[in-house]
Amino acid sequence: MAVKLATPQTSATRQKLELHPDRALPVDPDQRAIARTIYAQTKDLPLICMHGHVEAEVFATDQPFADPAQLLIVPDHYVTRMLVSQGMTLPELGVPRLDGGPVETDPRTIWRAFCTNWKLYRGTPSRYWLEHELVEVFGVDLVPSAETADALYDRIASVVADPDFRPLALLDRFNIEVISTTDAASSDLSHHRSLAEQGYGERVLPTFRPDAVACMDRAGWRRSVDALGVAAGIEIGDFAGFLEALRSRRRAFVAAGARASDHGHDLADTTPMDGHAAERLFARALAGEQVSLEEARAFAAHMLFEFAGMSVEDGLVMQLHPGVLRNHHDGMFAQHGLDKGFDIPHAVEYTRALRPLLQAYGTDPRFRMILFTIDETVYTRELAPMAGVYPAVKLGAPWWFIDSPEGMRRFRETATETAGFYNTSGFVDDTRAYASIPARHDLFRRIDAGFLARLVLEHRLGEDEAVETAQDLAYHLPKAAYARRDQI
Amino acid sequence: MAVKLATPQTSATRQKLELHPDRALPVDPDQRAIARTIYAQTKDLPLICMHGHVEAEVFATDQPFADPAQLLIVPDHYVTRMLVSQGMTLPELGVPRLDGGPVETDPRTIWRAFCTNWKLYRGTPSRYWLEHELVEVFGVDLVPSAETADALYDRIASVVADPDFRPLALLDRFNIEVISTTDAASSDLSHHRSLAEQGYGERVLPTFRPDAVACMDRAGWRRSVDALGVAAGIEIGDFAGFLEALRSRRRAFVAAGARASDHGHDLADTTPMDGHAAERLFARALAGEQVSLEEARAFAAHMLFEFAGMSVEDGLVMQLHPGVLRNHHDGMFAQHGLDKGFDIPHAVEYTRALRPLLQAYGTDPRFRMILFTIDETVYTRELAPMAGVYPAVKLGAPWWFIDSPEGMRRFRETATETAGFYNTSGFVDDTRAYASIPARHDLFRRIDAGFLARLVLEHRLGEDEAVETAQDLAYHLPKAAYARRDQI
Amino acid sequence: MAVKLATPQTSATRQKLELHPDRALPVDPDQRAIARTIYAQTKDLPLICMHGHVEAEVFATDQPFADPAQLLIVPDHYVTRMLVSQGMTLPELGVPRLDGGPVETDPRTIWRAFCTNWKLYRGTPSRYWLEHELVEVFGVDLVPSAETADALYDRIASVVADPDFRPLALLDRFNIEVISTTDAASSDLSHHRSLAEQGYGERVLPTFRPDAVACMDRAGWRRSVDALGVAAGIEIGDFAGFLEALRSRRRAFVAAGARASDHGHDLADTTPMDGHAAERLFARALAGEQVSLEEARAFAAHMLFEFAGMSVEDGLVMQLHPGVLRNHHDGMFAQHGLDKGFDIPHAVEYTRALRPLLQAYGTDPRFRMILFTIDETVYTRELAPMAGVYPAVKLGAPWWFIDSPEGMRRFRETATETAGFYNTSGFVDDTRAYASIPARHDLFRRIDAGFLARLVLEHRLGEDEAVETAQDLAYHLPKAAYARRDQI
Repeated sequence: MAVKLATPQTSATRQKLELHPDRALPVDPDQRAIARTIYAQTKDLPLICMHGHVEAEVFATDQPFADPAQLLIVPDHYVTRMLVSQGMTLPELGVPRLDGGPVETDPRTIWRAFCTNWKLYRGTPSRYWLEHELVEVFGVDLVPSAETADALYDRIASVVADPDFRPLALLDRFNIEVISTTDAASSDLSHHRSLAEQGYGERVLPTFRPDAVACMDRAGWRRSVDALGVAAGIEIGDFAGFLEALRSRRRAFVAAGARASDHGHDLADTTPMDGHAAERLFARALAGEQVSLEEARAFAAHMLFEFAGMSVEDGLVMQLHPGVLRNHHDGMFAQHGLDKGFDIPHAVEYTRALRPLLQAYGTDPRFRMILFTIDETVYTRELAPMAGVYPAVKLGAPWWFIDSPEGMRRFRETATETAGFYNTSGFVDDTRAYASIPARHDLFRRIDAGFLARLVLEHRLGEDEAVETAQDLAYHLPKAAYARRDQI
Repeated sequence: MAVKLATPQTSATRQKLELHPDRALPVDPDQRAIARTIYAQTKDLPLICMHGHVEAEVFATDQPFADPAQLLIVPDHYVTRMLVSQGMTLPELGVPRLDGGPVETDPRTIWRAFCTNWKLYRGTPSRYWLEHELVEVFGVDLVPSAETADALYDRIASVVADPDFRPLALLDRFNIEVISTTDAASSDLSHHRSLAEQGYGERVLPTFRPDAVACMDRAGWRRSVDALGVAAGIEIGDFAGFLEALRSRRRAFVAAGARASDHGHDLADTTPMDGHAAERLFARALAGEQVSLEEARAFAAHMLFEFAGMSVEDGLVMQLHPGVLRNHHDGMFAQHGLDKGFDIPHAVEYTRALRPLLQAYGTDPRFRMILFTIDETVYTRELAPMAGVYPAVKLGAPWWFIDSPEGMRRFRETATETAGFYNTSGFVDDTRAYASIPARHDLFRRIDAGFLARLVLEHRLGEDEAVETAQDLAYHLPKAAYARRDQI
Repeated sequence: MAVKLATPQTSATRQKLELHPDRALPVDPDQRAIARTIYAQTKDLPLICMHGHVEAEVFATDQPFADPAQLLIVPDHYVTRMLVSQGMTLPELGVPRLDGGPVETDPRTIWRAFCTNWKLYRGTPSRYWLEHELVEVFGVDLVPSAETADALYDRIASVVADPDFRPLALLDRFNIEVISTTDAASSDLSHHRSLAEQGYGERVLPTFRPDAVACMDRAGWRRSVDALGVAAGIEIGDFAGFLEALRSRRRAFVAAGARASDHGHDLADTTPMDGHAAERLFARALAGEQVSLEEARAFAAHMLFEFAGMSVEDGLVMQLHPGVLRNHHDGMFAQHGLDKGFDIPHAVEYTRALRPLLQAYGTDPRFRMILFTIDETVYTRELAPMAGVYPAVKLGAPWWFIDSPEGMRRFRETATETAGFYNTSGFVDDTRAYASIPARHDLFRRIDAGFLARLVLEHRLGEDEAVETAQDLAYHLPKAAYARRDQI
């Protein structure tokens, strides 16, 4: 372990871990007082979790979580990447290797490494979420450190073993009204069928994620197209068949309760290809011909345009999450696969990129689109101006690295003046760390309370308006943004 | 109307509309106290309005405004775009169709839609300005809502009918020392002649805006060139004649009191075309040949370089406002024309783009240039560094969507450290909403007072210096930035 | 002098210049109290100055500084550029002309111009640093103005003449534990040999800066390559010889105590050239053939990749400072040469640009890289995400125009949540203004204290943790980031 700082960590002297009721509220006493009042009116509202990455299988099988390391560390790339940044390796943290090579298997060893390096998380949202989870979910009052690691481990392990801590039971405990999973276009949705049979069909919903077949440059594109065909019961022999299979799966998703599709393209481009170019390119790719990066991007753009058209037909809300260069380090991708903390954002252009799609559908009352970004420079410049005029467009909550106290605050400061509050989606949690969901919603409600309290103190908003707005942002807006079209 | 929020608007319970004397001042009590002191020294300074979009005809004919909807809603794209973003249509808001098709004609209906949706403006500068206007200009004390809409309408209508509310009378009431209009290069300036005859020749000034002839890709370019020729009394047969006509009109503008030219190009590029390329391209375009987007951009860049040279000759201050993709939605443009809220900013590069112009004229004491941006990322990176060294360059006030409390605050925070205060233009209001001008200046003075108060409290500035700086920013700097060259 | 503001400067009435003990600390009283406590624990820590631009000769010869103008104005482009921006010329400020033409030679005249225009520096970091220097270093208590200029000049001149004010003596007075100079790859390091003989070999260290030979588009590239060969004692006849000479000089720098290399390329690109393309391009350039800008950039990118490999071999920390268009105004460059305030930043991309280098070396425990930027939009989007996962990468302190109170604050707000504190380098002063070094470190410690105090008040960090973090950022982290590899 390469963390060799000049001074030993002294924070273990602050032994008692507590959550202060005013945490993440503003510093100014008057502003804090108003923020407290606002937050008191939102903190108990149910959670609407319409863009999640917890696997459907976790809910469908409802098995207990394995151990503290498997619950809180190994699958959370926010947590592992910080340790990697200071010299630990993914195998040392128990992250599986694709070649089945050896990795750390002792969860307690992994847990100790994490606790010993607790210092590294200072100032990060991971620290904030983890403190919330330790206290609120696991009833712990020890600050993580080398000395407290074992005691913490034992406490959490006992909670995890409790039947009340199974995934479905946590839905109630976490006050989750509804949660979405993210599912490949080729998913057979069997887990959601099973959930429906268990009575959770209105509470755990699938989301249609077709990136694997829309992006020809993704590894295994051909395999994904084949799987799509199998799921749809359609022999995909040409582009028309491809579109038909996608439409068919979307109908199946809608039938299973899906409210949205999700698109994580590299770029935001939505330019449709001319004439029959998409058909020809698809045929070439299907025949196994090499497709250039430029061609793959043109096809991906064309597909975003197609998906918007399908949304008009079937009512799925179209979510767009562009601007991340996935798998920045080839070696790490080859060794460990996707989503291991080596995804790095880049600048992304929306104004010209979305123009073709918005010209076609942006004022169509049947179309709904939620735009996310990890490049926050576009809030004032591009996204708020578009959300502030196109009826189809809502601005999503700050995403990924900017789903954080400072990121959320900057989002309100930069987006509100042009888009208003009511052209935003309200909070969207977007995580695969199930136990962190309540912490994330809670943090958002606190930051919004602080921002609104400033507007009140600056006499830009009445206090009653601030409370109503906070409630809308926390609950009513996400519920409305992802409502079934027939229930709007 | 598609605004269907889960909770009814409760703000109508806050019945009394009042302007708090401390609005938009900082939250911290000590900072607010200092800000109050500073603001007290600027609030009554006259308004210098050197970049406005109120039509010259409004002043020249001095007719009363039609009704509350025509005064406050229909022509203000900030206001209409927010309603459109939630599902209303421009025709429902009374915005004329180019084809003369039917639009809402009852001003009271339009006014009611606006009041009913007052909630949407929470947190926006429109809300701030409108509250100021309702109280200060119209003497209203009712919060807009479905219930209060008619009472508000009647009150405003009676004010609008008052002779003291005519455009020229408002100049005094608004404490406007001088105001500019924006006029096409082909304008015959007849309204300004009429104003001069009425004794307003030093108070209502034209601004030379030649975009329609500098940008070959604009609709009606050829018609605009012809109109320019007519106004200049010159048969424009080649590029030399074109330049001669422009020079001639600039002289006429200067004679009519103009202080500045204004340039709203898509990009900031100022690269002159080589040798006789501009002549040849102009000839082709004049002959009706198709000109590519690239060629049109090269010509526009060449023209910015030419206009800088003309400014050296005639002393007009050159204002540059690049970076907006106008008419993002073709359908809306076809139906309603320019400036209907569908203009979306995009990233714009200044460092390389302005280099040719600044190499030629940036250190020339006869040249003055004011740079505006709507892409605020360039303040620290490009604009403040250029304004902080080139004597010709001043940084304009935050423009368009960032002419707002948060935008102004960020502007000071990001531009001041590198450009200082004295390389900025002071406030430039830039609006076609006449009644909002006092509110805009007032807001700017409040935000500057708050920023300066922080510097005082952080012991980075003396309080006497802060007061003097605030007065310079509010009044002396814009007056100096746009002074006649012979009066500097 | 073109500064003709409408109101006279009144700040001379605030005659007494004092440094308030709470300067640059936060406005909120509770936050300020905590910040004071934190700052008290860092203010006396020694200064680690690992990226400086004071010339080695200044230390080696240890001559007294010439006069107040030569010490504080003429060589400081932050100071001169502000006066130039308001109409003074570089010759009027005594800045030498390359052609030997006349410039102002009376230091008192230059000093008076500066004092008379003190107003221009309001709100800038130069003002902050200069106030600190005047009071702390020169014992002055007069606010600069036309009236006080001469008294100030005399006081400073007498201090400068004092033997205790010689460069080496100031190392102790400034509490500088170690300072780096910046030295061309071709430097014979004779000044550092002399310093070693005087017992300063561990305290004044060279830094290896090879831009002049890595960037073929720089003026005098061929001459720089020749000088490199001479210094290395190698006849550079081909690319292999070039690399051998670089390696040889790096070894000499390491032997002289160097800890780091420094790279100020235009772009951040690190893509290695294919096969033997670099060899061939180098041969062509060496033969005097014209090299295009694109070729020069490809070569510079290739060299960054090569330098990373050399860092793996010899342990020098690789510092990257891209994104500035040097010598924006050709005429000023021709007249006065480099570093005269006419360098303007531009947007720079890191995510794709650094990928080749990071794929090769980013997880190699032998490699260390510190990334700087002047384009602060990349903190949340690109740099913090990379520093937050790649063990080789640390984020440098805000650089150049953003080495300022607001810039530093924004840096912590935008970088910390994703990179944490411990993937940053701590403070790096980066200045050629020797007397400003204590002020710069002091300001950084104050801003960090304020930021950490907010985290404490928001219950996101314990106060003991905040103190420890502040000490790490001020002292331990820069010391560790630039430690000899064998001493990590």
